Amino acid sequence: MIERPGFSGIGQIVERARTGEVRAVARLISYVEGQSPLLREVAAATTPYAGQARVVGLTGSPGVGKSTTVSALVSALRAADRRVGVLAVDPSSPFTGGALLGDRIRMGEHATDPGVFIRSLATRGQLGGLSAAVPAALRVLDAAGFDLVLIETVGVGQAELDIAGLADTTLVVLAPGMGDGIQAAKAGVLEIADVFVVNKADRDGAAQVSRDLRHMQTLGLSRGAPGGWVAPIVKTVASTGEGIGELLTAIDEHQAWLSSGELVRRRRRRAAAEVEAIALAAVRARFTSSAGDALDDAAAAVAEGKIDPYAAADKLLDSL
Amino acid sequence: MIERPGFSGIGQIVERARTGEVRAVARLISYVEGQSPLLREVAAATTPYAGQARVVGLTGSPGVGKSTTVSALVSALRAADRRVGVLAVDPSSPFTGGALLGDRIRMGEHATDPGVFIRSLATRGQLGGLSAAVPAALRVLDAAGFDLVLIETVGVGQAELDIAGLADTTLVVLAPGMGDGIQAAKAGVLEIADVFVVNKADRDGAAQVSRDLRHMQTLGLSRGAPGGWVAPIVKTVASTGEGIGELLTAIDEHQAWLSSGELVRRRRRRAAAEVEAIALAAVRARFTSSAGDALDDAAAAVAEGKIDPYAAADKLLDSL
Repeated sequence: MIERPGFSGIGQIVERARTGEVRAVARLISYVEGQSPLLREVAAATTPYAGQARVVGLTGSPGVGKSTTVSALVSALRAADRRVGVLAVDPSSPFTGGALLGDRIRMGEHATDPGVFIRSLATRGQLGGLSAAVPAALRVLDAAGFDLVLIETVGVGQAELDIAGLADTTLVVLAPGMGDGIQAAKAGVLEIADVFVVNKADRDGAAQVSRDLRHMQTLGLSRGAPGGWVAPIVKTVASTGEGIGELLTAIDEHQAWLSSGELVRRRRRRAAAEVEAIALAAVRARFTSSAGDALDDAAAAVAEGKIDPYAAADKLLDSL
Repeated sequence: MIERPGFSGIGQIVERARTGEVRAVARLISYVEGQSPLLREVAAATTPYAGQARVVGLTGSPGVGKSTTVSALVSALRAADRRVGVLAVDPSSPFTGGALLGDRIRMGEHATDPGVFIRSLATRGQLGGLSAAVPAALRVLDAAGFDLVLIETVGVGQAELDIAGLADTTLVVLAPGMGDGIQAAKAGVLEIADVFVVNKADRDGAAQVSRDLRHMQTLGLSRGAPGGWVAPIVKTVASTGEGIGELLTAIDEHQAWLSSGELVRRRRRRAAAEVEAIALAAVRARFTSSAGDALDDAAAAVAEGKIDPYAAADKLLDSL
């Protein structure tokens, strides 16, 4: 018999997740990721227990060693007996090949440890997408009592801004030889970093990457101004674990600094982004579910030059 | 006296842009980028003249040589006496340092050529942002009679999906030694490519990148299935112009293929994304402009665990 949990069923699964049952956590996240009708119930049942976990975002260009850094951080956190959840987010790929690959590599090391939960999230283009699924998954891990949740995102672009919106502490990972100096500025990752990680620090050029970062900081191009937090630059060789202890210290120092009031501000911002994403997804659904698909009709008229897009948008909103 | 164009003023500027006056084009794009109150008037005045330009999107990871490829393409297009507009889009940076740098480099070569218009667009986080500004700028160049508009975006992630939505033809640029093989799959760029460009093809590993791409295509991981278009893989050394002629041929072949009906479909999709972005921006503006900022209140309640985000979104929508 297939189990079909209703609201009370979800409540029971949440209770099991809170006792540390990994399968219950995995099931809740599946509901969230699949944007199942149960998503709302999962959100309602986990909200009262959330707010305790520290949320650390980690981003950087492909090839800098994000996954290796995550794995090293997980090992260090486990050595300190802290329970850690990892959400690997792949904002653009509908087929998650890369994310699954990363999972397999990392699961090998931590697969049998109940204090670690690792999951790739893909969104397959649903309404609300990442903006709704990631906070919901985060809330599941938070309610399940994980002390720290790492959110890893691939790449450069809008995704980082989302990560910075979700995380209490945002790590930007760079590496020498990736053209990351000016490219980092170009990609706009500087202003979102709470901590810079210069990985592959045993390679030529690592010192130059650090100098470039420090220089850009003195030019006032990075975050940090509000409240006087200046993002530290931590050199690591994630593959050997070198510098990971220092990185953990930097994260903890930033978390302590946040407690001065910035934490409340960031968490409200996170909640605002989530509520807005859910509300906008509902509006979008109305655009396309209305009789005859109002959006399609508007788009055809605009594409044919019969109406400009602003006038079309006005008509679309009037039709709601 | 400062000129303050109203609707009829905008119409006159559009007329001047259509006669090839570069300053008029630049002014219209400034209105669009600055999300000025004139944005609507610019859209209304350019819509009737739009729809002729071919739109080519170009994307790839930092460091693969996107800007060099754009510059080489512009030279080749000018040699064929085709007027070309370039929009360099930097989706994440509020301070456009990199984009401006790229401008200066490229403007040097094409600055005195009235058949070329190059502009960086940044969005500074406005409502609607890129999703509204880029199609509007594109429409200006289209109405001004540019035969082809290149849209270049930095990075990996959501931005490419937007580019693929905007462009008739999407080029994905890769280069050897960037870990681009599997990383490309991870970043989800494969399924948006109409043409693959393996740049820096004179370096070690270029043949391997091509082989990896071809292999992934045989696995069915790339776009192409609908209508039988299989993205060709063109090897280039953009810095010397090698392979750029072949790239232009591949673009033209794709454009010819589009004429079979896919072009209408893609342009409707582009218009739908634009209209939706404008309408959603209007809804977002209502969330935050309502008395007491309904979204802020909702976010605070969610952050404190008093209400779940779905219930909060329902209340927010009811308040409209």
